[in-house]
Parts: sequence; structure tokens; C-alpha cells
Amino acid sequence: MQKFEEKTLKTEEIFSGKIINLQVQDVELPNGKTSKREIIKHPGAVAVLAITEDGNVVLVEQYRKPMEKSLIEIPAGKLEGNEDPQEAALRELEEETGYACKNIELITSFYTAPGFADELIHLYIATDLKKLENPKSADEDEFVELIEVSLQKASEWIKSGKICDAKTLIAIQYWQLQSSER
Amino acid sequence: MQKFEEKTLKTEEIFSGKIINLQVQDVELPNGKTSKREIIKHPGAVAVLAITEDGNVVLVEQYRKPMEKSLIEIPAGKLEGNEDPQEAALRELEEETGYACKNIELITSFYTAPGFADELIHLYIATDLKKLENPKSADEDEFVELIEVSLQKASEWIKSGKICDAKTLIAIQYWQLQSSER
Repeated sequence: MQKFEEKTLKTEEIFSGKIINLQVQDVELPNGKTSKREIIKHPGAVAVLAITEDGNVVLVEQYRKPMEKSLIEIPAGKLEGNEDPQEAALRELEEETGYACKNIELITSFYTAPGFADELIHLYIATDLKKLENPKSADEDEFVELIEVSLQKASEWIKSGKICDAKTLIAIQYWQLQSSER
Repeated sequence: MQKFEEKTLKTEEIFSGKIINLQVQDVELPNGKTSKREIIKHPGAVAVLAITEDGNVVLVEQYRKPMEKSLIEIPAGKLEGNEDPQEAALRELEEETGYACKNIELITSFYTAPGFADELIHLYIATDLKKLENPKSADEDEFVELIEVSLQKASEWIKSGKICDAKTLIAIQYWQLQSSER
């Protein structure tokens, strides 16, 4: 039994969508009382810190409907079916940026919003990039613009708030830490 | 008009809960086609990188129902009503850890899961901590255990995957970067 485990008394399926499902659970708390938990089920996702030969990071700008604005993020996307996360990372990198890579390695995996969602992002670092002549294209409802910037510029964009996406912060900070260790 | 803006054609309110709301929107894409967006509305949250006099970070372990396991995170919680984020940070720090602080400063704000949710977390750093004799207690459905560890231990826990929460990674990496600059 996990610490402070909450026993599920009842699960109500509220919504089943293309990307997320929503459940409301009645739970028994450690003190015997009951409460409700609102839970988003997500298939999981991948994100890629892709570093070019020039030492720039590959970013994508895309419109994010929940915030009604464009955000600058590292390439990312959800897992399709039972897709292997590394395959998904390579696929998203190609679809969103037109790059393939010779080296790809898992940095870490993290939960984005554990208070209400089970989304787990697997973060990879991709190096030895090569522009493909005929890359697979992105999802037909996805419009992205490519931006390649130096580590210094990316760090400035974090400080100024121009980059304000959690997975992108984690990736850029990781890269900063790696660079400062060298 | 924002780049690649998606025009809302119709909004369907699916669920309105204690913490999150769910909408499905029909949108018009930049190419004139239509698509659906599943969107979680969240009130926003705060998180606190609290550093003790001994140079340890204050973490809390709590059960996270979406993952059915306990996670180790920095103190955090959602905004209540029109609460000022800094007041919320001080409140969550007191409720979850029993600490007050003399210094608190905003580090940055970030979106946790911009693909499907509008949750914005305001991340603060709190120093000059003081244990309160009679702290306000946590929400009655919240059970947390306090853990205080060094920067080195926290970094090890990130590498090993024992810490796997996005906001906590961002906070610890920020702390590492600040320390390495000194």
C-alpha cells in the first residue's frame, strides 16, 4: 500500500475524447472520510530537446487554444496507440521540424499536472540532426513555425517570459546545466 | 491576430467541477478547415521553492490519485477565488509545511500542459523560513508528509526518477543553476 493511499469507491466516466478522458472518482481518504477527485486520463506524450550542429535548439511556435495564444515550445506530441516513446519522439521531431537525428537519448520522464491529470512526458535529447528532403508532415490540424536559437537566447526568453511552457523550461534548464558542467 | 489563430465556432460545456471545467470547442483552422479542441479550464496555481537556513529544500510527499501513487513535490496548490498569487504561495507554504517566510519572490510563471489545459503555475522562491507554532492546517482532504533534503540529494532524486513532477524539476534545476552561477 502506498503512503496516504486513497481507495476508489466509485468511478464515473464523464467524457471520452480524442485526446483526453475525464473521470470523477469518489475516494476514501486515509482518515476514513470521503472526497471526490476529478481526473484527466491522457495517453502520455514525448518531447524532444533537439540540438543542431550550430549548437542551436529547435523550437516550434504554435497556437494553443486553451490559452488563446501562440507558445514557443520544444517539439512534442502525444503517444499514438501503443507506440514506443522513442519512436514517437523521432516521429514528432520529423513531423514538426523536418529533422531526423542519428543520436537520441532519454533525459527523464515527468508528470505535467499531477493534481488533476496523469499525463507523463518522456523528454529526449536529439543530436546529429539532418534536414530531411521529404519529411512526413504534421497532423492536418497542426500549424507550427520553426525557430532555432542559441542556448543564450533561449535562456533570455525564459527570463523574459517569452518561453513559458513547463516541458520547454525543463529541457532548456537541463541543457544549461549540462553546458555549465563542461 | 495571433499567429495560426484558431477561431472558436462553438463551445460545448461538458463538465464543471470543484477544480477543473471541461469544454469541447469547434474551431476554424488557419487553412479554413475545422477541428475539435478538448480544453481543461483551471483556476491557476502556485508553487514554492522553499529553502531552509540549512540550505535544504522543503518537499512534500502526497498521494496523487491520477497516477495512483505518491509523488514528491514542492509545496503547491491552486488559487482560491481571486486570490493574489503571492498570498496563495504564502498560504500553501504554511498549510502544507508549517513554515512562514520573510522573503518571497516570483521566479517565473509557466503553463503545465498547454496542449489540453490552461493551468498556469506561478513559481516562487521563499527564504528566511521560520517554523510556526500554530500553522493553519491543510485542506481537510489533503495528507502530506514533509521531507527536507539538500540540493545534491534533490538533484540525485531527479536523476533517479524519484522526483518526477514537472514544477519540482523546474524549481530544483533553477536552484542548481543559481548555485552554479555563484
